[in-house]
Amino acid sequence: MPKQKKINVGIIGCLGYGGIGTIELLLSHPYVELTALINRTEFGKKISDLFPHLLGHCDQTILNMDDTKWQNRIEMIFCATPDGVAQNWAAQCYKKGIRMIDFSGDFRFKRIENYKIYASRIGRESPHACPELLKGSAYGLPEINRINIKKSSLVGNPGCFATACILAMAPALKENLVDLKTLIFDGKTGISGAGKKPNPLYHYPEIYDNMRSYKINRHQHVLEIKNQLSQLSSGAPAVDFTPSVMPVNRGILVSAYAKALPAKINADFYKIYRKFYQNEPFVRVFSKNDALCTADVRGTNFCHLSVNYNAETNSLIVISHIDNLMKGQAGNAVQNFNIMYGFPEDTGLNKLMPHP
Amino acid sequence: MPKQKKINVGIIGCLGYGGIGTIELLLSHPYVELTALINRTEFGKKISDLFPHLLGHCDQTILNMDDTKWQNRIEMIFCATPDGVAQNWAAQCYKKGIRMIDFSGDFRFKRIENYKIYASRIGRESPHACPELLKGSAYGLPEINRINIKKSSLVGNPGCFATACILAMAPALKENLVDLKTLIFDGKTGISGAGKKPNPLYHYPEIYDNMRSYKINRHQHVLEIKNQLSQLSSGAPAVDFTPSVMPVNRGILVSAYAKALPAKINADFYKIYRKFYQNEPFVRVFSKNDALCTADVRGTNFCHLSVNYNAETNSLIVISHIDNLMKGQAGNAVQNFNIMYGFPEDTGLNKLMPHP
Amino acid sequence: MPKQKKINVGIIGCLGYGGIGTIELLLSHPYVELTALINRTEFGKKISDLFPHLLGHCDQTILNMDDTKWQNRIEMIFCATPDGVAQNWAAQCYKKGIRMIDFSGDFRFKRIENYKIYASRIGRESPHACPELLKGSAYGLPEINRINIKKSSLVGNPGCFATACILAMAPALKENLVDLKTLIFDGKTGISGAGKKPNPLYHYPEIYDNMRSYKINRHQHVLEIKNQLSQLSSGAPAVDFTPSVMPVNRGILVSAYAKALPAKINADFYKIYRKFYQNEPFVRVFSKNDALCTADVRGTNFCHLSVNYNAETNSLIVISHIDNLMKGQAGNAVQNFNIMYGFPEDTGLNKLMPHP
Amino acid sequence: MPKQKKINVGIIGCLGYGGIGTIELLLSHPYVELTALINRTEFGKKISDLFPHLLGHCDQTILNMDDTKWQNRIEMIFCATPDGVAQNWAAQCYKKGIRMIDFSGDFRFKRIENYKIYASRIGRESPHACPELLKGSAYGLPEINRINIKKSSLVGNPGCFATACILAMAPALKENLVDLKTLIFDGKTGISGAGKKPNPLYHYPEIYDNMRSYKINRHQHVLEIKNQLSQLSSGAPAVDFTPSVMPVNRGILVSAYAKALPAKINADFYKIYRKFYQNEPFVRVFSKNDALCTADVRGTNFCHLSVNYNAETNSLIVISHIDNLMKGQAGNAVQNFNIMYGFPEDTGLNKLMPHP
Repeated sequence: MPKQKKINVGIIGCLGYGGIGTIELLLSHPYVELTALINRTEFGKKISDLFPHLLGHCDQTILNMDDTKWQNRIEMIFCATPDGVAQNWAAQCYKKGIRMIDFSGDFRFKRIENYKIYASRIGRESPHACPELLKGSAYGLPEINRINIKKSSLVGNPGCFATACILAMAPALKENLVDLKTLIFDGKTGISGAGKKPNPLYHYPEIYDNMRSYKINRHQHVLEIKNQLSQLSSGAPAVDFTPSVMPVNRGILVSAYAKALPAKINADFYKIYRKFYQNEPFVRVFSKNDALCTADVRGTNFCHLSVNYNAETNSLIVISHIDNLMKGQAGNAVQNFNIMYGFPEDTGLNKLMPHP
Repeated sequence: MPKQKKINVGIIGCLGYGGIGTIELLLSHPYVELTALINRTEFGKKISDLFPHLLGHCDQTILNMDDTKWQNRIEMIFCATPDGVAQNWAAQCYKKGIRMIDFSGDFRFKRIENYKIYASRIGRESPHACPELLKGSAYGLPEINRINIKKSSLVGNPGCFATACILAMAPALKENLVDLKTLIFDGKTGISGAGKKPNPLYHYPEIYDNMRSYKINRHQHVLEIKNQLSQLSSGAPAVDFTPSVMPVNRGILVSAYAKALPAKINADFYKIYRKFYQNEPFVRVFSKNDALCTADVRGTNFCHLSVNYNAETNSLIVISHIDNLMKGQAGNAVQNFNIMYGFPEDTGLNKLMPHP
Repeated sequence: MPKQKKINVGIIGCLGYGGIGTIELLLSHPYVELTALINRTEFGKKISDLFPHLLGHCDQTILNMDDTKWQNRIEMIFCATPDGVAQNWAAQCYKKGIRMIDFSGDFRFKRIENYKIYASRIGRESPHACPELLKGSAYGLPEINRINIKKSSLVGNPGCFATACILAMAPALKENLVDLKTLIFDGKTGISGAGKKPNPLYHYPEIYDNMRSYKINRHQHVLEIKNQLSQLSSGAPAVDFTPSVMPVNRGILVSAYAKALPAKINADFYKIYRKFYQNEPFVRVFSKNDALCTADVRGTNFCHLSVNYNAETNSLIVISHIDNLMKGQAGNAVQNFNIMYGFPEDTGLNKLMPHP
Repeated sequence: MPKQKKINVGIIGCLGYGGIGTIELLLSHPYVELTALINRTEFGKKISDLFPHLLGHCDQTILNMDDTKWQNRIEMIFCATPDGVAQNWAAQCYKKGIRMIDFSGDFRFKRIENYKIYASRIGRESPHACPELLKGSAYGLPEINRINIKKSSLVGNPGCFATACILAMAPALKENLVDLKTLIFDGKTGISGAGKKPNPLYHYPEIYDNMRSYKINRHQHVLEIKNQLSQLSSGAPAVDFTPSVMPVNRGILVSAYAKALPAKINADFYKIYRKFYQNEPFVRVFSKNDALCTADVRGTNFCHLSVNYNAETNSLIVISHIDNLMKGQAGNAVQNFNIMYGFPEDTGLNKLMPHP
């Protein structure tokens, strides 16, 4: 381990699942000093009194978000906050030279027109608080945007579903394998994806032994999926996206479908995918013969893809498995952080999770 | 309730989930005398000693399958048995005039060539034991084959996934709404669909907090789906079918996708579906605005369909919800029984299930 | 079925788990006309729009609790409401001759002093709204108070944990088998016992794969347990009660422990329990050799007891299994209703639930 | 980290939950070289092909248990095997100077008479294969037997339930606080405690939404509980032990009850427990006001105890929370290993687990 000054890092929204997940990772990151845990509520309390699993690992006192002295002590901030929060801090932080990774949709779009569509989809009415910063922001999916992430000091961490979907189809679009008008993503997510706030639909008795599709073609993540996929391809992809909630805690499983282009019928898609992701530290490509499941990636930053082709229908079918709170959120954010600071990408991300 | 002689009914394979489910329904069927509970193992025991929830409802002694005296006491048999069992009893029963509903794939195909493909898919090597009876058998999905079910004395009850898939797309194919080459079924099932026999994959710690796709494009149900859909349409449909297992007990949720034909772009698919199923006692059609979930149909014989159309992609997206052990198995079998005997189709099938 | 005028019944708080459970049962009760579904919120809506499993079974419009015209149309009311609600309606109903079964603690104590202790335990500060009615009320556990329930027009339905605990030890106390100073109840409950309202502790990701004891020695049900057990015995029992929440939907499992009195060492406790409950329609007594589980009683009004004795420690150990929403709530309430009106006790309560 | 030669370690039974858990821990143990993964089946395969979460962390080939060349390469063996296996290897290993920690009951009893009682309880008929080694073995619960573990080269790792129970009552017995004739342990366990082998009772649909008590007063762990507690106290304790299975993956929650001795009525039990465990790295004592749950210790080697006293009944009530596969199995074994080799006890055991 090279000698390296530690980065002073803060986390806003430290009590949601995204914030806690980031804390858990950064605590064992060799180049991070966790300097400020910041929240709008519960400040003044010890975080380990609220999350007993942190006892002895992190017993810091939560700071008041609105008492902005924390801005003077950090050089990097993770905003694990809902839509509309980070944009209110970004300009201040930018002026002070603080780099930012945001977990919401605030900085996932470089063009204000695209953000506006997104904002209307989630019911936000107020205009973006710092539209001038969008252009310099980077969409934080390393596998397709590493270079820009490295150059940017403001990164919009992708939506969890978007990550699973884009990774499933990026090689197909980049390598011009499939008909852009036939993309279908059928996504299933665990309930932690809905956050920590109680909700009548996710009250235990209401979702146990139950499966529920929702926001069919209306989910906000579809916008960033289309946005990113169109940049990977030569045209404008049409995308169906059906999300469903399953009674699991962590995990996303996406089945991605597309028809192969005539020139690619019976191509060796597995080989192409293997090659595409051969240098990626967190994407593993499996052939159709492998039995995969989301538990294989639980608690890790990996995306496992199985590549299948149905010769009878000429369909490419890629099954994408991630942990929605890791590669889908905090893990991916730490990977971005490593890229921004030039650390090896897997720094702090190699923990082995227990089975079962 | 009209005066009606009770039918003497037997159930082979009475200890699996299909058998138990059939018992539960027939116990409150006004025109059924449950005469013989038959099994290859555990005979001589009281069924309520093995299934305490039946105490006081059904305390019969299980009969030995191989001691065929039961054949003289019944006029109707439900074979809730694995593949390859019913075909060994069918000829005997046929000669004695016993009608049969079989839960396996033994009688889901009228043509022996189709059965052979199915048999090879599930790894069966021995030839069909009574191929001469296939022609007179009926595929037991009432919504598309009611007339033949009524005329037949040998009904092959559909696979649970097949039921959910076919009901989702039958109107689209019958009414010539979609491109036959674009059919995709993404199915999620609860674990009871795998039967009662323990299995390393469905041992509680292995499947809790886990999602697992399997047999992608290789699931045996795809054969009956294609077979039936081709009979509803003017051509040969191409079908992708991706099954996944979710940690729920009961329930199937299928997302069915197809591209609308040029002439049908922006058609009122909801209205067409409503009309198609308007007289069906067990299919309910909902528009895209309704929030549905599998718990709504848990323990019932209903299929709930939500009909969605994405104008941007020209995709028809139908979400199909059933209880895999009810409309997907025992409930549908009892519906077939009612059709075969001319009883109202919902006889014995109107129980209200508790929430949650 | 004898010719019988139907009783016009109302349910206040019809949208909680207790209210829905009562509706589900009364819909198939041959002597009940479900006349008024009443709530403080959501009135004007169809109940089946909120609970789709009721579609076709019950499509009534919810009435406004505060628009008291419903009082003129019913002769019996179930109050499936939280503490403090029924007491505000009781005097009005009483004057109009409306009989009442209340699901809260409002009428579980005949003496105002006992209610006051209970009220302080749950943090209620306002005095009881109609203390004059307490004396005439009856504690609604049929197995120990049938005669008074029959005579009363105001019944306090027991707490779910209290029912499981009292039934476990009633024979021991009534027959003077155990040392009153050694009673211990270790209770485990499913999460539906906490009601339908979302709660941070019972948000799916927080309680999945988790077990949590709470209110050790401080649970409010311990007061009615002690109250009722003292009436069954010759002295004042000392009671330890430890409740825990488990990630199940429905079900209570209570382990009840007590030391046998010297004269009862090695008594045939199983036989005594069998005799004690021999005429009870909803209590079944099993010996130590039987393998029981809460799923056996899921969705039913049964209490299954297994009676065990440890000769080495001289401990009587009774395991009590109920469905917390049935024998623990709505089922027991309907049993009380049947007693109050002289119907057979199991009227409307004999439904068979599906397995698994 | 001091310079330290790595210990060559083997694991027999490397594919069960205990074996996998030990691998997971030892992979990040700084003083361990994982030299031999040994099993009776599946040898020749890569372990990461069977457990994909190990990919990149451990891709070793499994060795054949019966091809004993592995004995020459290791100085320490973990036997994560069922009862009766380790005793067949112990003498061989002993002669070669290989130290052993066994996960079964083979070496939990120093006296052959006690082992015989245990063996009959679990239905073993063959005599112990190396009774001469029992005397030198040590019961591997560090908190009560650290000195002997340090001196021994053959350690019997405790049963998971036994660990939770003994830690709950060790201070009470050692400090002479409670009446030895009033000990009651009510234990609830997750299903991973039953091991990896499928079982009809733990097939997902059979145990979901279900709670089940079993082996009441007959569980084999009660023998080591009594055995160890009697060594901590001045007399022979009488013990009731009721185990129940809950639909969770990992976790044990035990409620332990005992009556305080007259001299100890209203003692400050919390303070006494705090003092007793003050130097223990893996036991944390909480007062009655703390809200604890098993998820707090999931994936960790901690035991969390909450100490409660009911002045009305004079009962001490201690709730004990562990992860059955960590402090209840592999974690505790690694703690023992650290003691045997003089490493800091928490070496390799300080991983933070993710929430939720």
